[in-house]
Amino acid sequence: MNPVEEYPFIVQPFEVDFRGKLTFPLLVNKLLNAAGHHADNRGFGMRDINKINRSWVLFKISLDLTRCPKEREEIKVETWIEGLLRTFTQRNFAISDMEGNALGYARTVWAMIDTETRRPVNLMEYGIDQFIHQKDCPVEKGGKIALIDDVEAQESFTIKYSDVDINQHLNSAKYVEHIFDAFTLDEIKRHNLIKRFEIEYVEECRYGEIVYIYKKEVEPHDFIIILKKENGSVACKSRILFSE
Amino acid sequence: MNPVEEYPFIVQPFEVDFRGKLTFPLLVNKLLNAAGHHADNRGFGMRDINKINRSWVLFKISLDLTRCPKEREEIKVETWIEGLLRTFTQRNFAISDMEGNALGYARTVWAMIDTETRRPVNLMEYGIDQFIHQKDCPVEKGGKIALIDDVEAQESFTIKYSDVDINQHLNSAKYVEHIFDAFTLDEIKRHNLIKRFEIEYVEECRYGEIVYIYKKEVEPHDFIIILKKENGSVACKSRILFSE
Repeated sequence: MNPVEEYPFIVQPFEVDFRGKLTFPLLVNKLLNAAGHHADNRGFGMRDINKINRSWVLFKISLDLTRCPKEREEIKVETWIEGLLRTFTQRNFAISDMEGNALGYARTVWAMIDTETRRPVNLMEYGIDQFIHQKDCPVEKGGKIALIDDVEAQESFTIKYSDVDINQHLNSAKYVEHIFDAFTLDEIKRHNLIKRFEIEYVEECRYGEIVYIYKKEVEPHDFIIILKKENGSVACKSRILFSE
Repeated sequence: MNPVEEYPFIVQPFEVDFRGKLTFPLLVNKLLNAAGHHADNRGFGMRDINKINRSWVLFKISLDLTRCPKEREEIKVETWIEGLLRTFTQRNFAISDMEGNALGYARTVWAMIDTETRRPVNLMEYGIDQFIHQKDCPVEKGGKIALIDDVEAQESFTIKYSDVDINQHLNSAKYVEHIFDAFTLDEIKRHNLIKRFEIEYVEECRYGEIVYIYKKEVEPHDFIIILKKENGSVACKSRILFSE
C-alpha cells in the first residue's frame, strides 16, 4: 500500500468565513480527517486501535500556508508518516490545488496511549514503520511557544455538545475554532493571510469544563494564544503569525 | 438537466459527536451545502445571483429522521425543488444510506431577496420553474412553533468569527449548532434519536451580537428553543422532538 494517500475535497458554501475562504479551523479539521482515513486504511487508525484499548493523542501541529482555499475550490490533502520513535510519530501533510500548486504544508506529532492507564505505548508494535516515507515538507521548525503571564483572560467558554469527541473531550479541531474565535473580524481583515499556525496540546479538556482564553500580540502580526482551565493549568498553547 | 441531484458524503472522524454519530448541526450543514451545489449547477445559486445583487434567505427547515448516520458511513443527500410561488420556493431533501434505505427527509422554504432593499423578489424570473419536481418526501407538516414566554434565558453567546457567513451574519447551520449546544450530553443521551427538528429563521443576527437562548420541554421529549437578540426580538424558533 502506498505510504502517501491523497484526500480531495471541495470547499463547501457553509465552510467559508466572511472572506469567502475556508475557515482556518475547518482546514485543520480536513487535515485531521485525512490523517484518520490514512491510518484506518493501514490498520493503525482509531477504528482498529480502540478495540485494543489504544487511542491516538495529537501533541502538536505546525502549519505554513501560502494561500487559503476559497469557496468551491477543489483541494487535495496528502498525508504520510515521516518518522517513528518509540513513543512519538511524525505525520506530515501537503495541501495543494488541483493544478498541483502548493498551498501549504503541515507537520504533526502524535503518541498512542493506553486508554486505561493513559500512558504512551511503544509505537514499534503496530506495523506503522513499514509506511515511513520521505517527501518534501517545507515547514519551518517552530520553537517552544512561550507562555504569556502578563495578560488577563480575554474571555472564556464552556465545553458543549458540539465541542466534544467520542471520549467527551474537546476535539482537536474545536480547540482551533475557539482560538480563532478569539480574533475579531477586524483583526483577521487587517491581515491578508494566516502564514503560520502552531498549536501544542498540553492537557485534555472535558465536557462541561470552563476554558479561559489568553491572547497577546507578542510581535507585530504575531500572536500567542493560551487556553487555560479553571484551575490555571494550561490546556494548549498556540501561535498565529499573520502576513503583513 | 435532472431536477434531482445526489450528493454523497462520508461521515468524517471529526464530524461525529460523543455517540460516534454525525452531529445534528453538521447533518443540517450537509443539506444546505447540497442545496447550494444544486442551485449553482442550475444557474440560480448564490454564485450567480450575488452578481445581480440577489441572495437566498432560508426561512424554515422541517426534518424527520429515522436513523442518524454514524462515523465513516457513506450517506447520500438528494435534493430538488418541489414548488415555486411568487416569493417562496420549497426545496426538499431525502437522506439515505448507500443501500438506498431512507434515513430521513427534510422540507425547506426559501425566498430570494434584493441585497440592497432586503425585500423579496419575484422568483418567477430566474428559470427555477423548469426544475420543479414531485418526489416522495414524507415529512410531517409542522405547525407554527409557539413562543415560550414563561422561562428565563438559559444562557447567551456572542457571534464570532467561525459563526458568520460572507455577509457577517450568523450562518444558518451555526444557528443549529448553538441550539444543540443548549442541551447537555445527558439530555441527548436519555434519548435514542432526534426524531424531528424544525427551525423558523425570523431575524438575521450579525457578527458581535449577543444572542440569548430560551429552552423548554413543552411535552415529554419535545423541546422548544427560542433564540432572542439583546433587544428582545426573536432571531429564530426551533423545536426538537426526541424519540422516547
